[in-house]
This record gives sequence, C-alpha cells and structure tokens, in this order.
Amino acid sequence: MSGIFFMIMVFDGLAQDTKKQLNWEVAYHKSEKGEIGKWMPATVPGAVQLDVMKAENYKQPYWFDDNVKQFDWMEDWFFTYRTHFKRPALGNGQRFYFRSKGIDYEFKIFLNGNQIHQQEGMFTYVDLDLTDALKENNEMKIMILPVRKIPAAAVYVPGTETYRQNARESAKPAVSYGWDWHPRLVIRGIWDETYLEVKDTTNLTTADVTYQLTDSLRTAEVQLALKGEKLSGASYKWIFKDKNGELVFEKTGVLSNDVENISGRLNNPSLWWPNGYGEPVLYHSEIILSDLKGRFLEKKEAKVGFRSVKMIMNEGEWEKKNVFPVTRNRAPASIEINGKRIFAKGSNWVHPEIFVGLITKETYEKQIQLAKEANFNMLRVWGGGIVNKEAFFDLCDEKGIMVWQEFPLACNNYTDKPKYLAVLEQEATAIINRLKTHACLAMWSGGNELFNSWSGMTEQSLALRLLNALCFRLDPKTPFIYTSPLYGMGHGSYVFYDKENVNGKEVFQWMPKSDKTAYTEFGIPGVASLDVLKKIIPASDLFPPKKGTAWETHHAFGAWGANRWLELPFLQEYFGEIKSIEKLVYYSQLSQAEGLKFIFEEARRQKPYCSMALNWCFQEPWPTAANNSLINWPNQTKPAYNQVANACRPVLASIRAARFLWNQGEDFSAELFMLNDTHEPLKATKVTATLVYDGGKEIILKEWDAKGSKAFENEKGPLIEVKLPLMKEQLFKIKVEVQGNPAYNSEYTLLCKNKS
Amino acid sequence: MSGIFFMIMVFDGLAQDTKKQLNWEVAYHKSEKGEIGKWMPATVPGAVQLDVMKAENYKQPYWFDDNVKQFDWMEDWFFTYRTHFKRPALGNGQRFYFRSKGIDYEFKIFLNGNQIHQQEGMFTYVDLDLTDALKENNEMKIMILPVRKIPAAAVYVPGTETYRQNARESAKPAVSYGWDWHPRLVIRGIWDETYLEVKDTTNLTTADVTYQLTDSLRTAEVQLALKGEKLSGASYKWIFKDKNGELVFEKTGVLSNDVENISGRLNNPSLWWPNGYGEPVLYHSEIILSDLKGRFLEKKEAKVGFRSVKMIMNEGEWEKKNVFPVTRNRAPASIEINGKRIFAKGSNWVHPEIFVGLITKETYEKQIQLAKEANFNMLRVWGGGIVNKEAFFDLCDEKGIMVWQEFPLACNNYTDKPKYLAVLEQEATAIINRLKTHACLAMWSGGNELFNSWSGMTEQSLALRLLNALCFRLDPKTPFIYTSPLYGMGHGSYVFYDKENVNGKEVFQWMPKSDKTAYTEFGIPGVASLDVLKKIIPASDLFPPKKGTAWETHHAFGAWGANRWLELPFLQEYFGEIKSIEKLVYYSQLSQAEGLKFIFEEARRQKPYCSMALNWCFQEPWPTAANNSLINWPNQTKPAYNQVANACRPVLASIRAARFLWNQGEDFSAELFMLNDTHEPLKATKVTATLVYDGGKEIILKEWDAKGSKAFENEKGPLIEVKLPLMKEQLFKIKVEVQGNPAYNSEYTLLCKNKS
Repeated sequence: MSGIFFMIMVFDGLAQDTKKQLNWEVAYHKSEKGEIGKWMPATVPGAVQLDVMKAENYKQPYWFDDNVKQFDWMEDWFFTYRTHFKRPALGNGQRFYFRSKGIDYEFKIFLNGNQIHQQEGMFTYVDLDLTDALKENNEMKIMILPVRKIPAAAVYVPGTETYRQNARESAKPAVSYGWDWHPRLVIRGIWDETYLEVKDTTNLTTADVTYQLTDSLRTAEVQLALKGEKLSGASYKWIFKDKNGELVFEKTGVLSNDVENISGRLNNPSLWWPNGYGEPVLYHSEIILSDLKGRFLEKKEAKVGFRSVKMIMNEGEWEKKNVFPVTRNRAPASIEINGKRIFAKGSNWVHPEIFVGLITKETYEKQIQLAKEANFNMLRVWGGGIVNKEAFFDLCDEKGIMVWQEFPLACNNYTDKPKYLAVLEQEATAIINRLKTHACLAMWSGGNELFNSWSGMTEQSLALRLLNALCFRLDPKTPFIYTSPLYGMGHGSYVFYDKENVNGKEVFQWMPKSDKTAYTEFGIPGVASLDVLKKIIPASDLFPPKKGTAWETHHAFGAWGANRWLELPFLQEYFGEIKSIEKLVYYSQLSQAEGLKFIFEEARRQKPYCSMALNWCFQEPWPTAANNSLINWPNQTKPAYNQVANACRPVLASIRAARFLWNQGEDFSAELFMLNDTHEPLKATKVTATLVYDGGKEIILKEWDAKGSKAFENEKGPLIEVKLPLMKEQLFKIKVEVQGNPAYNSEYTLLCKNKS
Repeated sequence: MSGIFFMIMVFDGLAQDTKKQLNWEVAYHKSEKGEIGKWMPATVPGAVQLDVMKAENYKQPYWFDDNVKQFDWMEDWFFTYRTHFKRPALGNGQRFYFRSKGIDYEFKIFLNGNQIHQQEGMFTYVDLDLTDALKENNEMKIMILPVRKIPAAAVYVPGTETYRQNARESAKPAVSYGWDWHPRLVIRGIWDETYLEVKDTTNLTTADVTYQLTDSLRTAEVQLALKGEKLSGASYKWIFKDKNGELVFEKTGVLSNDVENISGRLNNPSLWWPNGYGEPVLYHSEIILSDLKGRFLEKKEAKVGFRSVKMIMNEGEWEKKNVFPVTRNRAPASIEINGKRIFAKGSNWVHPEIFVGLITKETYEKQIQLAKEANFNMLRVWGGGIVNKEAFFDLCDEKGIMVWQEFPLACNNYTDKPKYLAVLEQEATAIINRLKTHACLAMWSGGNELFNSWSGMTEQSLALRLLNALCFRLDPKTPFIYTSPLYGMGHGSYVFYDKENVNGKEVFQWMPKSDKTAYTEFGIPGVASLDVLKKIIPASDLFPPKKGTAWETHHAFGAWGANRWLELPFLQEYFGEIKSIEKLVYYSQLSQAEGLKFIFEEARRQKPYCSMALNWCFQEPWPTAANNSLINWPNQTKPAYNQVANACRPVLASIRAARFLWNQGEDFSAELFMLNDTHEPLKATKVTATLVYDGGKEIILKEWDAKGSKAFENEKGPLIEVKLPLMKEQLFKIKVEVQGNPAYNSEYTLLCKNKS
C-alpha cells in the first residue's frame, strides 16, 4: 500500500491522467499545537491504531484475549499524518489534485504549514486543487482530531445509558463506540483510497447515468448528467454495450457548458433482477471526451442495471377490517422489482472488518459470493456500521444482491443541533450521490431502531426529516424509510428461548403467532467454531467458559443481559449438562442452525402478507466467542449458514413443527408445506415426511399428493400427527422428500428429552 | 364588492401606494376558443356559480330543497371574467401591478388579447407587473378552465369508488367534488381579494419576522427577512411594540441589497399561550422604509407571538414494555407549547361557507369566537377544505387557537405524476411562506386519512415526501405529520351506536376501552334545529323524514351507509317511536350532546397518555339536515355545542357512566373524576353526585372528599354503585357538585328504558 510510484494509464495511444500514491508517516500528540511524538510509518488506507500497534510492539494479534484494550488510551489524542512530495512538472492547463475517498472522522489538512481544508465526516470525498499552493518541495499534514464524545446520558428511559450515546451528535458510525458484539474501539485514520493526481485540461467530476423505464418496462429513457471544469468545447461520445459487449447505443456531440445533461433512448433493455428471480443484467456505459483535434481527454465508465424499484403495501393489509377508532394502516414493506413482488431474503450486514481501512474488494467479494450462495437477494446495511466502499456496490450489482442502505444513525436520539445537521447533510449528500446510480440500491433508511424507546427519535426529529428531504430531492425513485422497524415490521427475538421477552416461548412457538409485514432483524446466537475459539481465548480459559475471561471480552457473557450470547442456561436446560467444549459448540451451533431455519421458513410461510426475512446478522468485524452471526470473522461459515441457505432455496418442502423440544412418547405435530418464492408455478408432486431416529430407524409420517401452486404462491399440506416412539438418542430428524425433485428435499433436527 | 374606486392610504403625511378595485363581468363558453355567451355582472371575490344564478334567475336560495343541482352543468364549461381600465398616470419609477390572492382553480390571464399568465392552483397569489404592457385603454380577461376531473376509479378496495377520486391529480380541495355532508358543487372563480396597485419606487414583497427562543424562553433572537425590488439605498426602521403599545425594540439602518436579513434581540418577551393556558400575547412589529431624504416609501406590519412549539411523545409511550418481535413505538401526538404539555381540545374545521369567495373576516370572527367560548384551544383545518384567508390566522393568533393546518389532500391516492407534484410544490410553497410566521400555527399535516385503505397513500408517496421536504426547508421549527391518523391516533366512530364498526357497543362502552394517543376525529350526528330544517326542506316533506326528499339531498339518508346521518333506527331503538319533528330534533340533539360530552371527557380522563380530543366537526359550509357538526350553517349552535363547551372547561367534575342506556331497577355504576387540564394544582374539595329523576326527585349517590391534584393532573374518585329506582320518565340526570366551585359542576342526562 505504501511506497511511491506513478501509475500511467494509457488509452487509445494517449497518455491519460497521472495518479501518485504517497508515503505516509503518523505521530500522536496530546493537543492541537502540542509536542508531536515519534513519527511512525503509516499504512494508507489503514487506521492509526494499527500503525501504533506495529511501531510500538503491542501484543498481537489484537483480537486475542483482551489485547484490544491496548488501544483505549488513543481516543483523546490527536494523530497527524504527514507526507512529502515534489512539485510535478505540469503541462499547459494541467492541475494537481489531492484526493481521498475517506478520512475518519474529523480532520484538518495542511500544505506547507497552511491549513487548506477542514472537515467533519468520513464519507465525503476530499478533492483539493493544490496547483496554486505548491512549492518545489511540499509537506502535507492531515491532523485527525480526538474522538468526538458526547457524555453518555440516559436520554429517555433510565437504565439505558450506554457508550453508544457518545455518538449522538456525530455522523460517525456508532458501532465503534461499542456494541454487544463489537468492542469499544473508536478507529480513526485514512480509511480509503488516497492519492495525488494530475488532471489534463478537463476535469470531469460527475458523469451520472440515470434512466426512467416506461410503464411497460420496454423502453429506458437514459440520461447522462455531466459536471466538471473546462468541459466547454469538448466533444463527447456516449455508448452503451450489452452484456455480450455489443454496442446498443451511441450518441455524440459537443459540450457547451460545464454542467450538461445528455439524454437518449434504449429500446427493449434486458432487465436487472435480484438473485433467484432472474439474471442481474448489467450494461456498460462509457462517456469519452475528446478535444477539437480528436485527442482523448478523459472517460468515465459505469455499469448500469435497468430495473424499477418500489416499496408497495403488503398483500392483504389494505383489506384488513377497520374497527373504530381506527388508526393508520401499517407501513408498506414489500419490495417490487420490475413490477413483481420479491420476497426479500437475506441478512443484516455489519461490515467485514473492524478496521475498515483494511477492507478491499477481495474482502467483499468472498462474502457477497457467500450471500449469493445462501440464496440471499438482499443485505440490509445496518446504520451502526459504515457506508461501504465502491467495490461493495459493484459486487452487489453483479451478483443480484439488493442493498437496503442505512445512513450512519443507530440506537441513539441524534440531536437537532444545527452543527450536527450540517455535517449530516454534507455526508448524506455525498452518500446519496455516490450510490444512487447502482442497480442494487433497493431502498434508503434513516438508520437503525430510531423509533424505539432505547433510541427515542420520532418523525419529528430533524435529522430524519433532513435525510428524507435529501433522498427525495436527489434520488426520488428509490424508496426511503425513516428507520427499521417501521409500523408492522418486527425486530427480534435474538435467542432461541427467552422467558422475558417472548413470554417464555421458544422460537418455534412464538414465530407462527407473529404477523409482521417484514422480519428485518431476528437472531439465534451460536458459539464460534472451535478453531476460532482457540485463536481468541487462551487455552487455559477455553473450558468451561467463564465470565471475566476472554469469553466475556468476546461477547459470550454480559453482552446483553447476563447470558448473552453464550446462553449457557438455555443450552443446559435443553441439552443437559455439557461436558466438553466440543459438545458446547455442537449444541449451540445446532440450536442456531435449526432456530434460524425455522424463522426463515416461517416468514416464507407467512407470505404473501410477509415480505422479508433478514436475520441478524451476516458476518462480524472481529472474531466473537458467541454471536448471532452466520459467519465467523474473517470468513468461516457456521452450520447455521448452511441451514439458512437451505431455508432460502427458491423452492423447498418445509414443515412447521409445533415445537423444537419434545418428550418421549408425546403427541408430535407438524404441518407440511411446499414453499415457492419464484414467479413460476409449481407442478403437482408427491411429498413424503419421515421420522428418523436412533441412528437410522424410520417411520413414514405422511404421504401428501401436493396439487402444485401458482407463481409466488406456497401450498399448504396436511397436518402430521404421531405419537413419538421411545428413543435412545435425544436428537431425531424429520426428512421431507419431494418426488422427482430431490433439490427440494428438507431435513429438520429436533430434540426429544429423555424422561428422567 | 364591485364598483370602481381608488383608495389612497395616507401615512405620516405622505401619499402611499394606490389600490384600485375593478368592475368585473363574466361569461361562459363551451371551449377555449368557443363562442362566448352573454356577459353578466360578476361579484369579486365570489364564484361563477353565484353570478350565473343571479343573472339567469335560478331558483333560490341554492340551499333549499334540491336547488343546488342547478349548478351541475357548469363543471365542463369555461368561464371568462373581463374588466376594463385606463392606463394610470405613473410617476417616475412607479410600477403598476395586478394582484389576486386567489383564483380558483386553473386559469389563464390575458391583457389586451395577449396571454400574460397561466396557473394551476388557487392558493398561489398572482402578482403581475403590467406596466410595460399597458395601452391607453386596457382589457383584462381571466379564463377559468373546466373542472379538472380524473375519472373515478376503484384504486384499492372494490366498492370504494367515489366522486372525490376526481380530485386525485389536483391540488384543489377535494370537498367540492362531494362529501358525506357536502353536495357535489365544484366551485370556481376569483375567490379572494383582487385589485390593481400602483407601487411607488420600492416594491417590498416579503418582510417575514421569525425568531428563535433560547432554551430558557427568556430571550428571542428576532430576524426580519426582507425581499423586494429597488430596496438598495433605502433606510429602514424596525420596531416592536408590546401589547400596551410600548416600544420595546428599535433598529435602524440602510439596506444595501434587494434581499436582506436583519437581526436583533428582544429580552424577556411575554409569551403567546393557547386558550386556557394563559394569554395569547402578540407584539406589533413594523418595518418602515424611507428614501435618502427621509420620505416614507412603504411599511409592513405584523403581529408576532413568541412561543416554542414541539410535538413530543405521549407520556408513558416510551415506557411500554417491548415484546419481541417488536415494532416501532407509536408516533408522538402531544403538543408542547413553551415547554409545557397542552391537552389539545377542539374541533375539525371544514370552512364556514360552500362558496369560499363569500367568506369575510366577519364570517371567521363569529366562529372563532365560538371556538374560544367552547374552551377550545385547537382547530384542525381539515385537508379536504381550503387553506383559509389571512383573517382566519390573524384571529386564531389573537384568540389563542392553535391551528393544525393540513395541505389540500384528503381521502385520495394522490398521484406521483410530475405535473401534479409541480403544482403541489408551487401551492405548498405559497401556503407555507404565507402562514409560517403565525403564532397560532402549531403543526403541518400532509392531509386527511391518507394512510388508510380508502386512500391508499403511504410514506412512499412522493406528494407527501415533497410536502415534508418543503416544510423542513421553509419552516423546520413547526412539527410536520404526514397525515391523521398516524400510528396511535384514532379516527371515529361517527355515531352513537354502531353494530358494524364498534362491535355493537355504544360510545359509553367502547371509548373507555380505547387507548389512542390522540382522538383527532370522532363524531355523533345531530339533526339540525327546526328553523334550519324549515329553511331547507319543503313543508310537505318535513315529517316524517324520507329518502328521496330534501332530507336526502341534505345528508340525512345515504350520506354514508343507509342511515347516516339521521340514524333513525338508532333513535327509535333507544327512544321508542318518534311521533313529531320536535321530538326527533330533541332526541337526536340530546344523543349528540351527551355522546360528544362523554368522548371529550373520556379523552381527558385518559390523559396524560392521551393528548388530544378534536371532534368531527365544528361547523358546516351549507345547511345540512343531519350532520356531526356542532354549528348549523351559517352560525347557529346545536345543543351539542354547549355540552362540548362544558366538557372542555379547564377544570370540571366528571363521571364515567358505564352506559347511556339503562333499564328500570338495574344496578347503575359510574366512576367519579376531577379533571384538570391547567398547569395549576387543584385544591382539596368535596364532590357530591346526585341522581335526579321524575321531575325533581333526588337521591344522593356519593359524597367524595377529593384530595386535590397536581398541575395538569386529574384525580380519580370513587365508584358509584346504586340500584336504579323505578322511574316514570325515561330520561334521568346525574348532577355532580363541587363545594365552593359551582363553575366546576357537571350534569349528565341518561336514558332509562321503561320495562315493556
């Protein structure tokens, strides 16, 4: 990442712009003008914590035991980056820019001792024309200010005081301040691509491709919004190529202004579809500027997916009977793409790496491939985390993953103060303009759980009204919601069995009684796999797990209530005394896998009223000992991942077992279903449910002649009722087989308690 | 209203601007270029329907029998107004303007045959500089286009097709298209003040006084936003006088731009309070412009009330227990003025006259005085009706009536089409800028019942997102809601007893079981008083009331369901066979009065959780035979008005009777309360409840030593339980007397059915 080099891009035989990477150092100091300590090598993009860790020989890795606490002292210190560079030889009309895609979070930039920029906000790209301030030898400094911390205070309900309230006057993602699966570690530094650039003659800063599909979806009215400097007089060529590289559109002309809109028409575009509903077709758009003599000036490329997106009312909601005094109907939560309802299946995305400066395209690529392979079509990018780098959205475009993008607000009562609103406006404007042309962008959301008591915001909060207004003005065609959950959506529960919050019912019992429009967060915790546990917990503390050890630092105890996320009392109540780390991992991961499978399938059984199932959460930014994630950091799937992938197949056989936990000899019951999320009908078939126990004994429970169903419709089958046999082993299975379509088969593991 | 005259206003000895009223004629024609019929005298402001009615000798009055149907044919015709005037003698720098505060609804303006303006929207003031287009003799024409009608269509639920859907691509108030208490009568024409004006030198168009109160409310940072033409070089004097006429602020200076903001500070301002909570103190602000020689140029005056307004969460809502899967908390519905919660009591305002061009300051004055005397502090200006003329807001400022102002959207799925959105943006911008400086303006609302199935809009509807964005940008300090009801608010019921919609319970039974944040619409119908009935129904049809007569034209039958609003089956079930028009009026009005009194008092008993009680509706724009209104058109109170006024006293004794309808000898029960909406505590007192029956017999039911209560708190008293005596008369009373405070006494009339 570091090291000086010049990159010359050659296009059509002409030298294009020149980008220069820089060599950076970093040092810390107690006050703005205070004495600067030792200069250390800095990795850019990266984080100041990592640079200090390397330079000052911290205990490593930072994720082991409680090593993460070594960073605590840094919050209140200034960090200054510096770099040196020579004035480049600039041709006639050439300009020299400093550009950064992200500096976290509040900073000042100095060139040769003079402050040239000041910014609060890590999502607004920095773009500075240095040309007129250059000397022969230049020193640039970027001073990162101390962490912005509003003293934690109980804003609404006593007892809810938490670290995250430090973030409530800041547009920095709140997760850094500590969460129930994230240590307090307020990262700072240059976190995305940062370089010097020589621009030749023109400076084309914006080339946004938008379009309006006709109602029939057969024609795309395409628009190209150009903005820049010295564009007047340049000739342009704008083309579209289809997925096979065939030219399908071309328009040429001469620009007469620095702001110009070019429009055209594309007939019969192939549409972009989310995963499971068709191909995510992308077109290649290219705008090339040339000068009067035909010499290349610059070009901008974009991938364009043609699709319409709406958020429409859930089926059946408008038809509900009104009883006076009547309140409003619930909020719509059903995504419609290209005129068809989509059942949104997926996860909450929390970003894949605690040090977001380390995230690369490869980081994203592996995880988005996993999302696709899990049959997901949506990721909710949770407002506690970052707005991801460009590669994330490119990959979601390519793989047909719809993105529910939240602004960086979560679980706080963000202030109405003008200073915060100004920063939020700047950041949100940058975010909207950067993402609005992506096909994957399915909806905007103000942030996480803002309309709940532990946050205390409402539709009167100015921050949310501002975000709504900005999205309306800059990107009106993309749905916007204030927060999740809205009225009718559900968050939780987050455990398999919870006396307090779901009235002592296990997930198999409460979920079928729920009637939410969309399950946009729900979770079951699972312990990390054994090799992950060994990487983070000293061998002597590995078993039995105890509070006050690395288990607690890694969220197995006290993360939320006393027993989250390890849930030992539940595991012991269900599975009996657990005598080894291997058994602990097995039972915890089994309950997570079967519980999540149940919720995903039940949400689908509640279709068409229900429209979404997004579990909490997909991955984790550092290795936890126990967590709701499907994937251990950095990239290791838990068994739940596979069961969720099964539950999200476009078509499958499914059972609604009345409980997970049974007793010997008891009357067992379950209902049979064929689930179909596709826009194709299902043919008639024969479905057989079989009980498998004690290592292979089988009892056929039901043979069902399914009639088939219409597109996007499930078919409900018969009730299975059987007296459970006496079993020796406490786990048993129900397998459901579909004649002629083994890909639709399902299997469920359930628990039978031995009589004492 | 008509006739030519010149009005010269004299100020400080100097001639001010000159306004000229015009003489208008009107004619109709079938097409835009079609043959124009006879020119008729036109009253301005007024309505084309009224001009034709007078000129063509229609049956009058229009409200009698079915005379209103005479106007039906006009919807599809063009109407053109014309006027003639001479070029005035203009001094150096003087300009000559045509100004209108409202032309309804879509129109083109021609001067000497040339189109000089085109507009859709009746709320955007027309302001045209004619100077350069003047001839010696001038003819101005205003062509009103035919009624904009989108074919009625069932948008969501089959069977809901109604006339009002004609309005769903229009910013014209939908009520004209027909409602359950309003005939279809799509009024058109010049409906507000319209004149020619000579402006001397400067043209000051905007002088908005705004302020920011400090958190302590002890200081007002005042701002004056000036906009105009040729202001540069003018000197200004800006003053505030308090309610006694004392000068409390003065600032002078010289303007250097046509857009300028002047700021200052006012210490210890007396605050504006809503009726019942203090005095609605208004300051007088005056900005005077003079030229370099000290000669008067122009001035703008304003009344300024200093108050803060917020919409905050209802007490207890944040503390509700969360059960997973948890959805959002309810929307806030509690108005806070100057840091104190206000219990909002009032009515839904539907405008006082069907022909809104006839509304004058006097029309408003009588009704707003009635609202004040009813102890009201809020009027919800319903989105189906007009945004009122300036006098309305001036009067609400003066009388301490908070205004909940809706935009002109009601019970429709207003389109996302760009043309409608552009008109709505223009109209809403004009409305917001006109009203935002009024102290009475307590909240904005997108419109009526838009998030309910019979409308079909949601937070995704672009019209509502547009209105939110505009209010946020132009008036962020005033609360904004998308619609009523929001989540937690309640609309309905609208009858005393309703098998279908409230499960066959009378209002005394369902209302105590309800737990809404705010009751923003509820009604009980009452027949009009006898003299009103005689004005609208031919004598031969007066009794018994029948469908197909003027009773039906005036909404007594089939207005909504078969029996609305006369409710004959209910009246006969409760009161027995009704043998005269006098008895019909008496029982209907009694049930309305006692029912509404119960709802208002019950909403207050549900304080502090409940925050509002606004009945449907205050008045009516034409005389109905039966309706939920408290006031018959034009200005005659029904008995319900008096009972509602009683129920809205700041402090009163109250009972929660278990039912309205009792049987002889039955066990009667009621709970006693002292209700206190003030910010003063209540002292201990003795409260006595007495049963009064058969023309004066009394039984003391309960003597309660009330302990008193804190500010804004009710006190709950004991339960009254008694076996009802045998009675000869079917009506009996409970009177509740408060020792030492007869103003707090209450009396309730209840019904005891004789055994058959």
